[in-house]
Amino acid sequence: MGIVLGANQYGKAETRLVRVARAGDRHDLVDLNVSVTLAGDLDATHHGDNAGVLPTDSQKNTVYAFARQFGIESIEDFGLRLARHFVDSQPAIHRARIGIERYGWDRLGDHSFARSGGEVRTATVSDDGARARVVCGLTGLILLNSTDSEFWGYVKDPYTTLPETRDRILATAVTARWRHAGTGSAWDESYARTRELLVGAFVQTYSRSLQQTLFAMGSRVLEHRPEIAEVRLSLPNKHHLLVDLEPFGLDNRNEVYVAADRPYGLIEGTVLREDAPDAGLAWW
Amino acid sequence: MGIVLGANQYGKAETRLVRVARAGDRHDLVDLNVSVTLAGDLDATHHGDNAGVLPTDSQKNTVYAFARQFGIESIEDFGLRLARHFVDSQPAIHRARIGIERYGWDRLGDHSFARSGGEVRTATVSDDGARARVVCGLTGLILLNSTDSEFWGYVKDPYTTLPETRDRILATAVTARWRHAGTGSAWDESYARTRELLVGAFVQTYSRSLQQTLFAMGSRVLEHRPEIAEVRLSLPNKHHLLVDLEPFGLDNRNEVYVAADRPYGLIEGTVLREDAPDAGLAWW
Amino acid sequence: MGIVLGANQYGKAETRLVRVARAGDRHDLVDLNVSVTLAGDLDATHHGDNAGVLPTDSQKNTVYAFARQFGIESIEDFGLRLARHFVDSQPAIHRARIGIERYGWDRLGDHSFARSGGEVRTATVSDDGARARVVCGLTGLILLNSTDSEFWGYVKDPYTTLPETRDRILATAVTARWRHAGTGSAWDESYARTRELLVGAFVQTYSRSLQQTLFAMGSRVLEHRPEIAEVRLSLPNKHHLLVDLEPFGLDNRNEVYVAADRPYGLIEGTVLREDAPDAGLAWW
Amino acid sequence: MGIVLGANQYGKAETRLVRVARAGDRHDLVDLNVSVTLAGDLDATHHGDNAGVLPTDSQKNTVYAFARQFGIESIEDFGLRLARHFVDSQPAIHRARIGIERYGWDRLGDHSFARSGGEVRTATVSDDGARARVVCGLTGLILLNSTDSEFWGYVKDPYTTLPETRDRILATAVTARWRHAGTGSAWDESYARTRELLVGAFVQTYSRSLQQTLFAMGSRVLEHRPEIAEVRLSLPNKHHLLVDLEPFGLDNRNEVYVAADRPYGLIEGTVLREDAPDAGLAWW
Repeated sequence: MGIVLGANQYGKAETRLVRVARAGDRHDLVDLNVSVTLAGDLDATHHGDNAGVLPTDSQKNTVYAFARQFGIESIEDFGLRLARHFVDSQPAIHRARIGIERYGWDRLGDHSFARSGGEVRTATVSDDGARARVVCGLTGLILLNSTDSEFWGYVKDPYTTLPETRDRILATAVTARWRHAGTGSAWDESYARTRELLVGAFVQTYSRSLQQTLFAMGSRVLEHRPEIAEVRLSLPNKHHLLVDLEPFGLDNRNEVYVAADRPYGLIEGTVLREDAPDAGLAWW
Repeated sequence: MGIVLGANQYGKAETRLVRVARAGDRHDLVDLNVSVTLAGDLDATHHGDNAGVLPTDSQKNTVYAFARQFGIESIEDFGLRLARHFVDSQPAIHRARIGIERYGWDRLGDHSFARSGGEVRTATVSDDGARARVVCGLTGLILLNSTDSEFWGYVKDPYTTLPETRDRILATAVTARWRHAGTGSAWDESYARTRELLVGAFVQTYSRSLQQTLFAMGSRVLEHRPEIAEVRLSLPNKHHLLVDLEPFGLDNRNEVYVAADRPYGLIEGTVLREDAPDAGLAWW
Repeated sequence: MGIVLGANQYGKAETRLVRVARAGDRHDLVDLNVSVTLAGDLDATHHGDNAGVLPTDSQKNTVYAFARQFGIESIEDFGLRLARHFVDSQPAIHRARIGIERYGWDRLGDHSFARSGGEVRTATVSDDGARARVVCGLTGLILLNSTDSEFWGYVKDPYTTLPETRDRILATAVTARWRHAGTGSAWDESYARTRELLVGAFVQTYSRSLQQTLFAMGSRVLEHRPEIAEVRLSLPNKHHLLVDLEPFGLDNRNEVYVAADRPYGLIEGTVLREDAPDAGLAWW
Repeated sequence: MGIVLGANQYGKAETRLVRVARAGDRHDLVDLNVSVTLAGDLDATHHGDNAGVLPTDSQKNTVYAFARQFGIESIEDFGLRLARHFVDSQPAIHRARIGIERYGWDRLGDHSFARSGGEVRTATVSDDGARARVVCGLTGLILLNSTDSEFWGYVKDPYTTLPETRDRILATAVTARWRHAGTGSAWDESYARTRELLVGAFVQTYSRSLQQTLFAMGSRVLEHRPEIAEVRLSLPNKHHLLVDLEPFGLDNRNEVYVAADRPYGLIEGTVLREDAPDAGLAWW
């Protein structure tokens, strides 16, 4: 026949884990969504022999048990521990990836919290048994500049009707992921500072395109965070369209906008160090 | 035949409006989702005669034009103005309802903002030409107490398997709406204080049921805000289930939980003043 | 204080139940989402005394147990049985409402099925111990006529810019609910016929407004189904906007459209028999 | 600094296009969601020079204009035409990808339709100016076997509690994408047959794991469709958990199930011909 199995992987997705740490009356809360992905010698499974398959239910149990046994110092360390565990303990598994979303909560009291909304912090840890890689990130961070954004000087082809503008709203929902060169950072501090750098670059860049802003955001991170080798950004252009109020005898000097749903521009790019170490499995 | 038209209404839903107010270099941002609903003598329309119908497209235009002409001091005042306009200007329209959602943005700079996530502020203004009513509210405010919540002493019927507990997580996503007695409040201050009272009551109530917490939240508002006549709360019980770790030789002293999706408890109730004025169209 | 508890209710929402009925090798599948709501003498609960509260967890258990004990002949009969059970067995409960969504599956083989997509069938049964009421319905039925729809002759106010049209696309996502006069119908047959009548009226009505189509749909049902006393329809106007292709030297004779997301018109109305019996709790 | 721009791309996402083709009174409907992605020499843009940038707004216009000028014989041909257009007409653009979702509609009459729900048909066309590649697919096809599925013989590690089963529900939401060897198929016929083969393999495979079913689905397609070189499948395991009814004195012989939301297994794999031609840009 000549029909073969190619790349394949499996795992348990979206295990929802909340851990309460109690230091006396004062509690801390960690709220996660954990997805495990495993790959290796899984050909036999695809032909009906499950001898090498660790059930996805066991993967879920491991996530909960590890949260109890080892706590969750950071999502990156939790991911590193889980990834290595699966690769080390399962002969058929040669690669493990742990994807984690962390939902933020603001403290209201010793044991009271409000979900902070806004962005979700993410981490993806990949491990092949020899070496682990860590990609940190965030998603759902919605930013807007109400001026200091232009768009002009672009190609005019026969299908171009967009008027040039020297003053527009620039808004996006940031998804950013950044690859660490190593696996030993002060994760929470690194995350907080990187988030701050991304936001700062968005705010401070006088923008001639969302692409320019993207590059400014990525390079700002690399300039200040030596532990990071590469930044990938996905920036939807959340269009705000000026409403034509002339039919009602009104002007509209960049004051009243429609926030449009679809379609939207989508700008994606990578910013990295020229001497960035090999990414290996990082983006698997 | 004896088949007749009963209650009916129509309007333009979800007009997305962003207004930038510029005081020199410092901008302010208002981000709204506005829904207009009109009712009145609309029988003829249902038989193909549109002479009394103001198109929903015109309603949308009015929202944008009013944002330019009058600004948006508060969503309540903006709603009051729009509702009265439709009732006053359209002979066939006898009742108008303006529903507004306001999305929060945190300031990052003079003209830079981050969407704040968390809850959405809401207002519903109803007007029959003679009198307007204002219901304020919020939705999507997720709160959690990691202790000080019990649940026991309940009915045990043949289908009851739930174990009683003296210590559980209590979590909910608050949807609250509160009816103002009049139409002349300092809306933003009233909203901020009411939100604070709801959150305070959730945090400070030692809870024996989510119903008890609901009543505490509603009555706390009424005790402190004389301008409010009635509070309606819808509180999903966002169950956090303790994971059984015994199979792995581990205890679990209220530390590791599953955040469950479905099913969920749903607790709904009204708290009001005994002498609350008639609600009229308020909850229409 | 004079602060009191008003209307209140509680229950378990969105219990997901799949039942497989096996008649030898040939299986049947029922896939439901069941929500229980109870009301009655629940004041004490709101002050911390749970003696009258049947836990929502027990309500969920009852749904599963009843599916096993009694089967699910129809969602209406299943709802009637559950509603009566809660009212009869719980002294504090005076009213029960069972809301059910049924997801459709198409048969692929004796024990194989494909989810049919399209609309979801709904039923809401309310019971106060003395009498039960049944409201049937559907939601998510998306219909489109590519012609035979006009819209003109409407009010032109200062905010009207919409051009009149003698030929447009009319599209909507039907949510319909119809109240039965009694509780003893051949439910599946009644549902199938009513759905057919709604669709038939949409297709066959030459429309001058979505309101006119709404009335045609409701009255068509009442003309043919004596067991139904009242129909309520909620019809979003899913706007399809003709694209202006003139800048590219092209005409556009009702051929190329944008399917818009927001805003949308929302048309809602009731059609009923003049002599419809009292609705009682039906729409609770 | 040594900070550089890496891989990058941009485009207009989710342009919603509905085209009505009129052959006399009988209309045909095509309902699409089109996403354009372009890549090439775009470094300058990231530094504020837009001379090489075709605005995403022009891309959207092109989609609508092409629908008018050339019609939409198939989504694959429409994608091929668009992709080649951007690469050929824009000097800075070296690669174009057109992603299309097609929503199904069932005919109700000459010019009346009901959205069919169920799966969405997809196509992704990539073109580097020299050669185009076509990947077809579908997403959201939910399938269920109520028996003929076992799961046993798997690894038992210290975190395994899952009981083995010789009879379970197997359900999944199929996302499948298949790469064509060339660009000249009878697209609609090829799609219809491939969908049929996927469904047939799911239904007819006595399954010992979802992995086995995945391989059966992919190889079934390759066995019968010579024009297809490779199939990629992503199959969430939509768990149906048997409810424990023993506390209520009831047995449950594979009759009453919870349809669980999260977590879920996620099984992903590729099935391809040993001599499959190089994929090139196909999966970009």
